[in-house]
Amino acid sequence: MMKQPNWLLHRAYLTPDRVALIYQDKKWTFRELAFEVDELSNRLARTSLKKGETVALLMNNHPQMVMLVHACFLLGLKIVLLNNKLTKVERLYQLEDAKTAALLTEPVYANDHDGDLPVYTIETLPEADQDHKKKIEKDFDLNETATIMYTSGTTGRPKGVEQTFGNHFHSAVSSALNVGLREDDRWLIALPLFHISGLSALFKSVIYGMTVVLHQKFDVDEVKASIEQHRVTMISVVQTMLSCLLSRLEECPSSLRCLLLGGGPAPYAMLQESKEKGFPVFQSYGMTETCSQIVTLAPEFSVEKLGSAGKPLFGCELKIQDGQRTCRPFEHGEIMVKGANVMKGYLHREEETAAAFDQGWLKTGDIGYVDEEGFLFVLDRRSDLIISGGENIYPAEIEAVLLTHPYVKEAGVTGMYDDRWGEVPAAFLVTDHKIPENELYALCQSHLAKYKWPAVFQFVDELPRNASNKLQRHRLKSKGFLR
Amino acid sequence: MMKQPNWLLHRAYLTPDRVALIYQDKKWTFRELAFEVDELSNRLARTSLKKGETVALLMNNHPQMVMLVHACFLLGLKIVLLNNKLTKVERLYQLEDAKTAALLTEPVYANDHDGDLPVYTIETLPEADQDHKKKIEKDFDLNETATIMYTSGTTGRPKGVEQTFGNHFHSAVSSALNVGLREDDRWLIALPLFHISGLSALFKSVIYGMTVVLHQKFDVDEVKASIEQHRVTMISVVQTMLSCLLSRLEECPSSLRCLLLGGGPAPYAMLQESKEKGFPVFQSYGMTETCSQIVTLAPEFSVEKLGSAGKPLFGCELKIQDGQRTCRPFEHGEIMVKGANVMKGYLHREEETAAAFDQGWLKTGDIGYVDEEGFLFVLDRRSDLIISGGENIYPAEIEAVLLTHPYVKEAGVTGMYDDRWGEVPAAFLVTDHKIPENELYALCQSHLAKYKWPAVFQFVDELPRNASNKLQRHRLKSKGFLR
Repeated sequence: MMKQPNWLLHRAYLTPDRVALIYQDKKWTFRELAFEVDELSNRLARTSLKKGETVALLMNNHPQMVMLVHACFLLGLKIVLLNNKLTKVERLYQLEDAKTAALLTEPVYANDHDGDLPVYTIETLPEADQDHKKKIEKDFDLNETATIMYTSGTTGRPKGVEQTFGNHFHSAVSSALNVGLREDDRWLIALPLFHISGLSALFKSVIYGMTVVLHQKFDVDEVKASIEQHRVTMISVVQTMLSCLLSRLEECPSSLRCLLLGGGPAPYAMLQESKEKGFPVFQSYGMTETCSQIVTLAPEFSVEKLGSAGKPLFGCELKIQDGQRTCRPFEHGEIMVKGANVMKGYLHREEETAAAFDQGWLKTGDIGYVDEEGFLFVLDRRSDLIISGGENIYPAEIEAVLLTHPYVKEAGVTGMYDDRWGEVPAAFLVTDHKIPENELYALCQSHLAKYKWPAVFQFVDELPRNASNKLQRHRLKSKGFLR
Repeated sequence: MMKQPNWLLHRAYLTPDRVALIYQDKKWTFRELAFEVDELSNRLARTSLKKGETVALLMNNHPQMVMLVHACFLLGLKIVLLNNKLTKVERLYQLEDAKTAALLTEPVYANDHDGDLPVYTIETLPEADQDHKKKIEKDFDLNETATIMYTSGTTGRPKGVEQTFGNHFHSAVSSALNVGLREDDRWLIALPLFHISGLSALFKSVIYGMTVVLHQKFDVDEVKASIEQHRVTMISVVQTMLSCLLSRLEECPSSLRCLLLGGGPAPYAMLQESKEKGFPVFQSYGMTETCSQIVTLAPEFSVEKLGSAGKPLFGCELKIQDGQRTCRPFEHGEIMVKGANVMKGYLHREEETAAAFDQGWLKTGDIGYVDEEGFLFVLDRRSDLIISGGENIYPAEIEAVLLTHPYVKEAGVTGMYDDRWGEVPAAFLVTDHKIPENELYALCQSHLAKYKWPAVFQFVDELPRNASNKLQRHRLKSKGFLR
């Protein structure tokens, strides 16, 4: 049993005067944060909640959410992070599935909740009682579940991913071994804290002794001002955020040394513009099950290795598998990953957990290949596979080609019913300017085997994406995008 | 069972073109290093050595030593690092005690060896045979012993400290979390690789993807030139090396961002001079059993917290214990440490291993206290305790006071027989200028209780130190230093 001292308490002892958190015009040092978290945990301890139980957290990005996360850990409570875009029905499913003992939330959601579960907000938590001695968990057991997040559910019913303290620790460490660590690092988070891309920054904060600059949501002007005012060095972004930043800024703010890009490969034009404007974009590949990025592409390769997600973080491994066989370079197969940041399993789902692993390797369900140097190229989600006349077609491969066109901002490809071939690809494009169809055909013809050429090109205002900004190709079909 | 891919192979895959090693006018990228190590392991594999066996390595700092370390790991061999200052008798004791299967060395030592053990040098290893398939250990089991080092033996007979891959990994990670990690980091090692202070840099190199600039030994002019030529950012030093660098340089070379100082607290004048000249000195406390530093003082505290070793690295803990009781701030007691970098145990010594730990805490045998902020002050090795008229006296406490005198360069205190009190302290000083005794008395009188005042002050050219630069107070007594 591997233990570590409680990260927040440890950090408050090691570097009490460093700034832990900035939100709007407020700042907290680690000492101040630990003090407020201690008070909050005193109040939480007066509820019925007991060590080992699971609580759900449903909040918008806010310092109170940061404090509640740490307060729960101090009391040995596991946390289910709830997406605030869920419908009430979806939320109830997760609360029941995780067997949560209470819901911690804010007034706007508390009033919307009508289940049996105890609901607390900062306002309704009992007052602290000095006589009521709370039992503090001074150590983290690295094998224990810290947080639970339900996967986006583009395939099947959402499952709770159990992320341990060890997973989070190794994710933070591997990231630092990859992008480095400086005393003046400040990480801006405008992504939701209920997603791993946001939440992981809180753990980096206490493990590195680093300031997190928290935003309630992404507003390009506010983020720009915040980067400049606080000399932000790192920021987690998805494509749409990067696109906004590029439109808004003629050059990269001087303090910024890493933009960690999640949620799929960026289009060529965007990467080219990033390069020209000096934005150090690190493309990455990861999922809730790997506690954020597990494969990352350094900026020096972003154009040379266009479309690649990069190489694994230190201590992490990947391979491409076809059945029981490991694929050679350029052969397509399922992406398998391994590492200390890979989840323990799916909550209360022994069978699905067992099925998710093969001899210690997580089967991501994604299709890809590695080139001769070991760079990963993600082709597709297995469930998006288009089968056409017996040939396998991976939409992402076609999208990657379309994205090389300088006017194409976003591309989504899905299968369309066809009398002759069963299915044929159909392409949906978000563009700056109208592009003649023959140009697009010419582009595909020069890069793709004939059976991969899209049967139609359709110009749309936006593509369907889920809360994690992941393209939902199945919705291209179902939502009437096709004529 | 926690595994990681073989660090060198992994690193050669992740960042093949980064420079791994610089020695004199030669450079190796990680790809080149891995290639040479592969060749070397092919040759090693043709000897009688088998996975799981222990080999002894007796070499001077040299790229071949670096390669042999990695080659042994590739074949699953544990390594005993032998101090090249040992007498033949001392060496034989360690070879037998560790049950080594062979000695890997260089000609100068090979000829000096006349035991039964197979002895190999790079020159006498069998040639590689392409038909002879070697079995490569692709993974490191973090719980397995990687290296064994015999403790300096200032108390009792030397014991072999078992350092696991996990110990080395966490030591490297904790160090990075403390001093940061930059892409341009280059670590200069002029300390012996058979000591943990030197060897640990090799593991940092492959874990960080960082260049090590290796020197055969410390020569102040060569080290100065090397720092400037290779833009060295980090260097591990002991007091005498720091002192040489300060004499030689009017200001800190611009590239240098950390001088990691081991081997006891530095004198006030040296720290003051370091500060004036802009040398960022990180004082540290550690031992072979903790796989290098476990407590470190950042430069911003080096004068304010004079004499302190600092605070633990992230994930590491310390406490002061008196019997079964944890001491309060400023109370003296035994220093206890815990962390993932703390050794597995003493080789083939179950009883001594059990005795070295108390409920997971390593009993360092050193005496110290923490102040109200948790900074550690190391007072003394328990074995150096002076008992005078029933009062405990810790030599280091007196030395720390003497070191505040601007002319005192080094100070050593030991117990001297006394008819009345049993023992009284005697002080030995290395100074720049002769200091009148009454000045020294005045200094002690204003800082120390009467029973701690030294009975004599003796001016000497140097103090007895062991190969790790640790002051050997018992030799002050035995080596005729006293009149």
